[in-house]
Amino acid sequence: MSRLHRYLIVVAGGRGLRMGASVPKQFLTLAGKPVIFHAIDRFLDYDPAIELVIVLPEDSKGLWEELCIQYDFKSAHNIVTGGEERYNSVRNGLSLIRQKSLVAVHDAVRPFVSTETIDKCFTVAAEKGNAVPFIKPPGSVREIFRNNRNRPLKREKIALIQTPQVFRSDILLAAYARAYRPDFTDDATVVEAAGHNINLVPGNPENIKITTKLDMILAETILTINYEL
Amino acid sequence: MSRLHRYLIVVAGGRGLRMGASVPKQFLTLAGKPVIFHAIDRFLDYDPAIELVIVLPEDSKGLWEELCIQYDFKSAHNIVTGGEERYNSVRNGLSLIRQKSLVAVHDAVRPFVSTETIDKCFTVAAEKGNAVPFIKPPGSVREIFRNNRNRPLKREKIALIQTPQVFRSDILLAAYARAYRPDFTDDATVVEAAGHNINLVPGNPENIKITTKLDMILAETILTINYEL
Repeated sequence: MSRLHRYLIVVAGGRGLRMGASVPKQFLTLAGKPVIFHAIDRFLDYDPAIELVIVLPEDSKGLWEELCIQYDFKSAHNIVTGGEERYNSVRNGLSLIRQKSLVAVHDAVRPFVSTETIDKCFTVAAEKGNAVPFIKPPGSVREIFRNNRNRPLKREKIALIQTPQVFRSDILLAAYARAYRPDFTDDATVVEAAGHNINLVPGNPENIKITTKLDMILAETILTINYEL
Repeated sequence: MSRLHRYLIVVAGGRGLRMGASVPKQFLTLAGKPVIFHAIDRFLDYDPAIELVIVLPEDSKGLWEELCIQYDFKSAHNIVTGGEERYNSVRNGLSLIRQKSLVAVHDAVRPFVSTETIDKCFTVAAEKGNAVPFIKPPGSVREIFRNNRNRPLKREKIALIQTPQVFRSDILLAAYARAYRPDFTDDATVVEAAGHNINLVPGNPENIKITTKLDMILAETILTINYEL
């Protein structure tokens, strides 16, 4: 079988700069380069031919163009507009998939995914239809119920899910053709609802999701020390 | 009701330096001070009268004495020997509890617990008998079954558990008087097995468990920037 074409859909936040919110983390600079470019470069390092689909909130497109000029980002890429929910953003990105392929969906705020993680996801997805990276929780885990009730979960049975989540395009397109459900928190849940078993593969611990100021500071450190990803 | 006396049991690892392992993280230096002293100082800052019980592996006691001299650690403290499992270590620490009190059990490798987290745990434990801090997972979560099967868990129902876990001494002593079970991964599970509901309280995100080299590097950054805990 010849190698399948690869797409990368980068999900860069839903609401963007509206309502006086601070600049979304994916556009902040990390060691001299916006977070989202770090994330994209990880995939270009892995496969320079990967086709880029960037999903941006409408009101972030101007900022994106400025950043591309300012940081000399010249890789060919497609831009589509994000939706209210992550589900809508990915679905809009999928409108640009034009051939049978493997599609990686990645959070723009995960700049430290390793080449090994990317490779494992693509390899397993090519073989089994999908692949989703995870790490084990660092300590004990509990499930919370109503009325202050909770119970322990077995740590070794819990997977903290990362991205990229990689799928054969036919599977992902068919899954996203179905109606939205509120429990679609990521692509894995969408594809699972279409009847597929999700294949978990080991992620890398540094593949953090940057959502807080502390995360940004830690991210800066990871880059400063040139930590081996 | 007069305020209850407070104990801190610091659990400093089971196996220590045996079998040629590298130095346990709790004895490594972080911004000029061993991790374990950072952890203890958080509690002394909160309550200078807290009574310290340090649980050490037999073969780390020499190192501990050297560190106390080298880093001028002069706070009064009791030392007990750790056991094979965390359960045994805590149980040994409990042998020194001599009065009705509140007992905090804390990982030596969590140097960044905030005063607010400590205070909430003691306050809720005084009122309800126990308190255990947690944070929400950063992204989607799955439960792993056999044969590559897994299913999504609701993120908002998942608690990643931290320490200190704080208990009324009578409750903790009675719980640890019962027989050991392999599913006792922390003190909460021990107390729960004795019939108590666990009270979850918000922890702080920086209250990480230092277990990897990357954790140490991130920890150094948190201290270097004097991040507000």
